Amino acid sequence: MTRLTPHPDRLFPADPAERDIARRLYAEVASAPIYSPHGHVEASMLVANESFADPASLLITPDHYVTRLLHAVGVPLDELGLRRDGAEPTASGRSIWRQLCAHWDVFLGTPVRYWFESELSEVFGLTEHPSAANADELYDELVEKLASDAFRPRALFDRFGIAVLATTDDPADDLAAHRTLADDPTFTGRVLPTFRADRYMLPAESTWPARLDALSATSGFDCGTYAGLLDALRSRRAVFAAAGGTSTDTGVIDAGSEPLEPADAERLHRAGLDGSITEADAVAYRRNMLYQLAAMASEDGLVMQLHPGVLRNHHRPTLDTFGPDTGHDLPDATSFTRPLAPILRDFGTNPTFRMVLFTVDETTFSREIAPLAGFYPSVYAGAPWWFLDTPAGIARYRAAITDSAGFVKTSGFIDDTRAFCSIPARHDMSRRSDAAFLASLVATHQLSEDDAAGVARRLVADIPVDTFRLG
Amino acid sequence: MTRLTPHPDRLFPADPAERDIARRLYAEVASAPIYSPHGHVEASMLVANESFADPASLLITPDHYVTRLLHAVGVPLDELGLRRDGAEPTASGRSIWRQLCAHWDVFLGTPVRYWFESELSEVFGLTEHPSAANADELYDELVEKLASDAFRPRALFDRFGIAVLATTDDPADDLAAHRTLADDPTFTGRVLPTFRADRYMLPAESTWPARLDALSATSGFDCGTYAGLLDALRSRRAVFAAAGGTSTDTGVIDAGSEPLEPADAERLHRAGLDGSITEADAVAYRRNMLYQLAAMASEDGLVMQLHPGVLRNHHRPTLDTFGPDTGHDLPDATSFTRPLAPILRDFGTNPTFRMVLFTVDETTFSREIAPLAGFYPSVYAGAPWWFLDTPAGIARYRAAITDSAGFVKTSGFIDDTRAFCSIPARHDMSRRSDAAFLASLVATHQLSEDDAAGVARRLVADIPVDTFRLG
Amino acid sequence: MTRLTPHPDRLFPADPAERDIARRLYAEVASAPIYSPHGHVEASMLVANESFADPASLLITPDHYVTRLLHAVGVPLDELGLRRDGAEPTASGRSIWRQLCAHWDVFLGTPVRYWFESELSEVFGLTEHPSAANADELYDELVEKLASDAFRPRALFDRFGIAVLATTDDPADDLAAHRTLADDPTFTGRVLPTFRADRYMLPAESTWPARLDALSATSGFDCGTYAGLLDALRSRRAVFAAAGGTSTDTGVIDAGSEPLEPADAERLHRAGLDGSITEADAVAYRRNMLYQLAAMASEDGLVMQLHPGVLRNHHRPTLDTFGPDTGHDLPDATSFTRPLAPILRDFGTNPTFRMVLFTVDETTFSREIAPLAGFYPSVYAGAPWWFLDTPAGIARYRAAITDSAGFVKTSGFIDDTRAFCSIPARHDMSRRSDAAFLASLVATHQLSEDDAAGVARRLVADIPVDTFRLG
Repeated sequence: MTRLTPHPDRLFPADPAERDIARRLYAEVASAPIYSPHGHVEASMLVANESFADPASLLITPDHYVTRLLHAVGVPLDELGLRRDGAEPTASGRSIWRQLCAHWDVFLGTPVRYWFESELSEVFGLTEHPSAANADELYDELVEKLASDAFRPRALFDRFGIAVLATTDDPADDLAAHRTLADDPTFTGRVLPTFRADRYMLPAESTWPARLDALSATSGFDCGTYAGLLDALRSRRAVFAAAGGTSTDTGVIDAGSEPLEPADAERLHRAGLDGSITEADAVAYRRNMLYQLAAMASEDGLVMQLHPGVLRNHHRPTLDTFGPDTGHDLPDATSFTRPLAPILRDFGTNPTFRMVLFTVDETTFSREIAPLAGFYPSVYAGAPWWFLDTPAGIARYRAAITDSAGFVKTSGFIDDTRAFCSIPARHDMSRRSDAAFLASLVATHQLSEDDAAGVARRLVADIPVDTFRLG
Repeated sequence: MTRLTPHPDRLFPADPAERDIARRLYAEVASAPIYSPHGHVEASMLVANESFADPASLLITPDHYVTRLLHAVGVPLDELGLRRDGAEPTASGRSIWRQLCAHWDVFLGTPVRYWFESELSEVFGLTEHPSAANADELYDELVEKLASDAFRPRALFDRFGIAVLATTDDPADDLAAHRTLADDPTFTGRVLPTFRADRYMLPAESTWPARLDALSATSGFDCGTYAGLLDALRSRRAVFAAAGGTSTDTGVIDAGSEPLEPADAERLHRAGLDGSITEADAVAYRRNMLYQLAAMASEDGLVMQLHPGVLRNHHRPTLDTFGPDTGHDLPDATSFTRPLAPILRDFGTNPTFRMVLFTVDETTFSREIAPLAGFYPSVYAGAPWWFLDTPAGIARYRAAITDSAGFVKTSGFIDDTRAFCSIPARHDMSRRSDAAFLASLVATHQLSEDDAAGVARRLVADIPVDTFRLG
Repeated sequence: MTRLTPHPDRLFPADPAERDIARRLYAEVASAPIYSPHGHVEASMLVANESFADPASLLITPDHYVTRLLHAVGVPLDELGLRRDGAEPTASGRSIWRQLCAHWDVFLGTPVRYWFESELSEVFGLTEHPSAANADELYDELVEKLASDAFRPRALFDRFGIAVLATTDDPADDLAAHRTLADDPTFTGRVLPTFRADRYMLPAESTWPARLDALSATSGFDCGTYAGLLDALRSRRAVFAAAGGTSTDTGVIDAGSEPLEPADAERLHRAGLDGSITEADAVAYRRNMLYQLAAMASEDGLVMQLHPGVLRNHHRPTLDTFGPDTGHDLPDATSFTRPLAPILRDFGTNPTFRMVLFTVDETTFSREIAPLAGFYPSVYAGAPWWFLDTPAGIARYRAAITDSAGFVKTSGFIDDTRAFCSIPARHDMSRRSDAAFLASLVATHQLSEDDAAGVARRLVADIPVDTFRLG
């Protein structure tokens, strides 16, 4: 049984003098409040504030960062709690937990293990590394903890020191949960909706007409026309902003943003509705919609987060059996400089417009994102995302971005997680990694330690607040 | 005259504490047996077991890693022993060796020099760095060594501690050399064939019909039809497997794998035979063949190695004069996520199917290969290959791959060499580089030293054995 | 007020033993003469040798490295001295300088700040970091210095220890300034023209016919025909060579180099002149011209510098208002292996031909540039350029290039700057960064310290002299 005791100096540089600097820089920010301007925790969880059902459905089943690598070594997804063909899961929470413990070594060297170690130790107080031998014992310990009031969602929210938590929400969402939270005098946390309209941009998808209907119902605008859809989106953005939302999110396979003439867009809209739209026209429709969302952002000032370059549902049989978000969304080569030219030509220097660029193709950090953020006042370099959200990924991001965009045009850390209990571990990882990067600049005399401490503090406070207009 | 004494701590981190960790991790694996599941040493060399002719034809002429950089500084290839227009080489072994010694500084900082230093010192016992001044003296010393029994191929095979050596063989090869070795009670080494069918996938090549004829002769199937070619390949794979082969290799310019209807494939096959095939159809034929090879692998369980992205014979005049494999095969941008979608859709979760992905475009490590290996049970992240098979390349590979695929979905080291005597130096480089990477994780408290030692041991034993089904 | 005292050990590794090595290596080259074979300082400045007008027009306004990041945080370009719609600038030198000082923290961690710190301290003797508080005081100090004879261009040229300075010049330039300098017995510096014919390669540009007219006038050849243009370029190259020029420069959006039949090129030339050329034909014309420039280089031996992959003038409104070179030239994905195949097939092993490849897409370092330079005698790997010309960029370049191309096939440092006073700081940064890289190879026993010192010395002397044929 090895002790689970995350080292206080973890992620700091090996060189003793450099490490000392990193320690001091980290100390400046270790306990700073958490700003989480992009993630996938549900507001309803905080409304209900019910105890979590069990360790597996909290920590494993919904988190495709965890299930994918277990799947990669041969564990079928239904043994991890995923629903096969919509049926009830057959695996018990305990058996799912045993799978994780039995395959604990698979995660060696990965950020998933790193987060788990921090989380199990610091949130749950476990003292032993998971293993096949102690799986049941640890499971019982977690079950007991989760049943206590101290582990209800709101208690954890407070304990984690979350200053702002942004959710991700469909434009047709009525934001009832957000309103309930805002109106609840017993809950003082700040939980903001984020407007994500991806599904309305894809007229070739079979679910598109039904989505338009739902949005018509919520918004009161007839989304049967393109003009109506734009009105509906515009009005829902205003509702989101009124509910405290400061940003939108958009996930697209590419960042193309060529606008269409309204009449052409109407024609494509009709073709989408009657099922006759071609693949090329669906692409043109999507790219125009990205442009229109930027146009709206330049009017209402909601910060536009852009996440291009992920090929969703690469393994069709897994999609058909287990649904989306099951670990086989995979990165593809991405670009920004050319595809964003139309948006940036028209809104790039508009002071109301703001765009945060994320990527899973790290070649774009030094080649496109930093140069764009280093010229356009509206463009910010988003933190390392998804497959790149790791200590090594953060180091490469800072090394690649800082030269052309400095620190002030970066977004601050984004956890983008469904795993509520990993939020403090993820932000802590980011703070340690940034301290290590800054320490390397100090140790090589590229930055004074005073300046580095100032940067470290801004990275966890002013910078996310300013970037996402949370002030 | 500088002493040729490779430092015992070479490639270990500079920080003293980190270096101590690396030393201990390396000590765990320094003398472990060598698994070489992919390379270009010939089985016939071990059958004949004749003394090597001379230092130049052993160490320089056949090794395009060496000749290319000498060519790049102006040494004509025929002065390095390559045959001009098929004629006998004019340069003597001694004059070729002198070229290397005179240009020894050209290799400063390169892995070729690193391997040579290890090899000349540890295999051949030289004590001085090559130079124009001592070239003849060193040549004589090498000639004398090579004439001794201790430097015959089998003696070196044993001395190198090679547990498994895989060759690369044409499907039309009768594998006589492999059978002779297997039947020879005096040779106890394990030498396996690897099935490489590249040349049968390219119907626009002028040599394609003749290759089909040769394969028809060996296999007994009529390769004049597409169906016959598939039968022939399938039957030869079985012969390779029976001869101990556990894997195949495929080199393609891209990883496209779209299957064709059999009737369409037959039509393209005929067009290839009568010389009327278009470039686009030749591409479609090749991509279908890649899919068919995957289909066969999902039946017979031969591990499918894939090496895409190298533009062969970039310099046409050099090809015309000196033939292929003469140093001007050059990398191009490569992708995996999209082109492999057909294969992975149909075989990606088939437990019999296994695919090891190699690249010379390192952008694909974090963007495609690690994410694919981190979801698909069938996909493994191949070791850094060719231009990336260097201490710095290995460090970047581990840093880029580990986050999404850990260690267990990597392939273990591959030497892929024609230079028999460099095998121990190459594997040693890999072990040192991995020890350095693991030490950095330990020093930054991302991994315990015990866990790191376990990983180090697995990387040179279980991992290659499991990946290539050598158990 | 923090002291402005660049640390003597800046950019050296943190590990004390490694740092000691770097110190010794740097000491070998710290005061070596500066070879600057590519840049944008004007020869006329040295002819006139007038005192610089003021700190802002010397240090800020013309340097898009500086203005772009200020623009990115919201400072309008006209407040930095750029001409709005061709009008006289409205911002005073003092107010521009105040903008820089007020935003000094924006540059933290960037090479711009690094260069400024070296330059303000070592060239101008400032002792305080710029800030809003001391902006006026520092401005006055700089104004006073600039008025003194010691800060005239020629005095600085001597003080900087510039052995060779290459300018960048239009083929239609009469090189009068270069001749005046060469004929002036009181100026002993070596200032060479560089032939840059980009603008003659773009027949769809509205300014193309006027440029051809100007070139006809200078050259005496009628550029109304394609054949005439080739003659004109050829003759101007000879004039540049006679004026001491040893190289050409070419900036193109891609490196495509497919030659055209002369009759086809003539047809496209005419279409360009009468305004009827299609976009595709304009591309074909440009790529043919790149091929023709290589053909000329293989005749006259002028070293061909190639800078592909920058999308010029990304933000059309800024171009329309402020003109080109105003900070929104942005990198795009680039390749070399395929597009340069025609040139390298025909001239790649021609000993007269030489080509230095630069990139702003660093993925090409290990994938294309190093492998090409590691085979073709004619190809050299250009130093990190523009967005990559930073300490971190240089470290990545060396790590990515050395494996396949060693040191001798790299170009030596290129400052490529319009900022005359930053030349010593930039070369010093490069020397420190290379010392750090070499020290890491020594500390990990990949290179002896003697060999490393030899490489360091060659990188600042023989290597640029040989690469650019300056001997």
